[in-house]
Amino acid sequence: MAAPGAVSPLAVTLPTLPAIGGVRLGAASAGIRYQGRTDLVMAEFPPGTAVAGVFTRNRCPGAPIDWCRDALRGGQARALVVNAGNANVFTGAAGRQAAAATADAAAALIGCAPAEVFLSSTGVIGEVLPHEKITTALPGLHASLSPSAWESAARGIMTTDTFPKGSTRTAELGGKTVRINGIAKGSGMIAPDMATMLCFVFTDAALPAATLQSLLAPAVDASFNRTTVDSDTSTSDTVLLFATGAAGNDAHADTAAFASALRVVLLDLALQVVRDGEGAQKLIRIDVTGAVSHGSARRVALAVANSPLVKTAVAGEDANWGRIVMAVGKAGEPADRDRLSVGVGGTWMAHNGAVVPGYDEAPVVAHMRGREIEIAIDLGLGSGADTAWTCDLTHGYIDINGSYRS
Amino acid sequence: MAAPGAVSPLAVTLPTLPAIGGVRLGAASAGIRYQGRTDLVMAEFPPGTAVAGVFTRNRCPGAPIDWCRDALRGGQARALVVNAGNANVFTGAAGRQAAAATADAAAALIGCAPAEVFLSSTGVIGEVLPHEKITTALPGLHASLSPSAWESAARGIMTTDTFPKGSTRTAELGGKTVRINGIAKGSGMIAPDMATMLCFVFTDAALPAATLQSLLAPAVDASFNRTTVDSDTSTSDTVLLFATGAAGNDAHADTAAFASALRVVLLDLALQVVRDGEGAQKLIRIDVTGAVSHGSARRVALAVANSPLVKTAVAGEDANWGRIVMAVGKAGEPADRDRLSVGVGGTWMAHNGAVVPGYDEAPVVAHMRGREIEIAIDLGLGSGADTAWTCDLTHGYIDINGSYRS
Repeated sequence: MAAPGAVSPLAVTLPTLPAIGGVRLGAASAGIRYQGRTDLVMAEFPPGTAVAGVFTRNRCPGAPIDWCRDALRGGQARALVVNAGNANVFTGAAGRQAAAATADAAAALIGCAPAEVFLSSTGVIGEVLPHEKITTALPGLHASLSPSAWESAARGIMTTDTFPKGSTRTAELGGKTVRINGIAKGSGMIAPDMATMLCFVFTDAALPAATLQSLLAPAVDASFNRTTVDSDTSTSDTVLLFATGAAGNDAHADTAAFASALRVVLLDLALQVVRDGEGAQKLIRIDVTGAVSHGSARRVALAVANSPLVKTAVAGEDANWGRIVMAVGKAGEPADRDRLSVGVGGTWMAHNGAVVPGYDEAPVVAHMRGREIEIAIDLGLGSGADTAWTCDLTHGYIDINGSYRS
Repeated sequence: MAAPGAVSPLAVTLPTLPAIGGVRLGAASAGIRYQGRTDLVMAEFPPGTAVAGVFTRNRCPGAPIDWCRDALRGGQARALVVNAGNANVFTGAAGRQAAAATADAAAALIGCAPAEVFLSSTGVIGEVLPHEKITTALPGLHASLSPSAWESAARGIMTTDTFPKGSTRTAELGGKTVRINGIAKGSGMIAPDMATMLCFVFTDAALPAATLQSLLAPAVDASFNRTTVDSDTSTSDTVLLFATGAAGNDAHADTAAFASALRVVLLDLALQVVRDGEGAQKLIRIDVTGAVSHGSARRVALAVANSPLVKTAVAGEDANWGRIVMAVGKAGEPADRDRLSVGVGGTWMAHNGAVVPGYDEAPVVAHMRGREIEIAIDLGLGSGADTAWTCDLTHGYIDINGSYRS
């Protein structure tokens, strides 16, 4: 088992994120909660930058979520300010004031309207955000912004994360090659809709806000909303997509390639979040086929992904397909026990409602010892298919969450 | 943390269960999976015994569930046969044959129809039940049945349970005092609908099967369906209620007192199951008030009860009301962050969407150190109220479930 503070064994290396035309960013230490690390991140965008956003469906969202939903109506962004260590959630009027004061301070530095400043906060819930620490640190941070500080930004938004998360792709769009960079944080309180995390995506593409929003929503649905760590849904989940337009592409071009690259970036980031799931020792992929519909397949996949008994079995390297059957059954979706097949790592263990005759456990046992576990479920009913990802449930999760606040 | 094999710190002592007119029962060692303990339980009832049942809603139920659902159509029971160690789930045609063979053997010993024999199996999923071990042990077990072997029966149905579970009450019914005895097993894979468990209730009341069924369903809903250990729903959940009629009461009398006593017995047993939740160190009661409806209150209560982050916070004795707010918000029920209040152990920590001014954490900290934790949530919207129970999520749960099968 990993000691607290150790990097996840499933960690991946942060790729080198190139400059995105028009984006300047950086990180600073505001001393909000953590000592000896950065906890405040700012990005500045040129006039005309369009923005799209998707937010948590939790009914008790934080003040920054309310702020962003309002700001998004304008469709324009000049800055992003993110703090780690305090989520500014369930803080009442004081929380709303803290959000407004932060936006006011950033707007004054940049010379824009406060409604062009987007805010995210992550960390402890229910404590008033000490916004004066943020507003004190912002001028120095603003003065230090650069086009290349992607790793600093990715590190500055971390909470219980054990490694920084980033992804980059290019796409052809309206006669130009555009870039998409994304950074994300998140490791616990991860579940649809959305995974508990913050994700910020930056592109030099020129696309209007309405187009960005129509591309972002399905991309989030295909990525973050198919991952789960612990079934808990954060009050602060945020995905924001900023498009500076510096690439100078035709803004009314076919967006298929851009949409595809955006989806790849978001799925890459979503899986990095799962790889950093609190206490995670194994990444689990669940492929469901043969469902009556794609939606039904997704619900079955997520029921399996959220089952504590499946997740502890994987932690114990036990190919306990009985628990998988249980989790399929509890999803409430159409399923016929006698048509159901279950496999692990490419080996079918159960077929049409009973154990496969002469089933050889050896390759399954070997697969279960690895870091990436594949579970296949065929319902035998139709052509609906979908995939979900999760991690195993280990002592590390209990260690981290039994003593997070105290 | 309790060592594997240790009795739950939340255990209660098995009460002395009196004889129930017409019921004879006992336990034997059939060697199905466990060594050195009983694993086969039988009860025999006189002709005319009525029966009611409520079963798992899991879509992949075990063969005994199918058997009982069919048998229940007759409304009459002469015997109950329960084995521990093998759930006879996902075993295909062989599983159906094992169930039928068991029922045939019991019916032959008693001289009744196989459809008057009710079956339950609990334990590992996906392995064919070695029913010949059961049919070999049944004659000796049948010869040993007695009116007083309640503790033996309660122990013989245990799997990962750390203590036997029983409850008894009396009620006035149709001019007579009738008795109700219940025994139950279950500690993991516990969630509505129903909790993963087996529960068998016996009464000497004279009531027709249809009346019994109309009393049993709401009593299960008010008890087992308000408890959760890990949100996983078993493929074998069963509550069976047998009424021998030996009390000789008027079978068409007012059943209110009987219904109330039945509900008390089932809630007592359901909470014993939660107290034996795998790895449980604390019993958690969640009272939700102020919801828009009772159903909404229940869904909020269960969302909190199923939240791994709330359950690990309780394990860590951390009164983390921010996580409670998160869990309320993720329930998807009507909730207004700015009307929400949260308390623990009788102390309100947050009121109308913000921390209570001058909130003194001392009594809350003291309460969190106890064995029985009370969480109060007032949504401030209406008069809907309900209660759910769960246990904390500890290293013990991971220990037990990471190595159950291997």
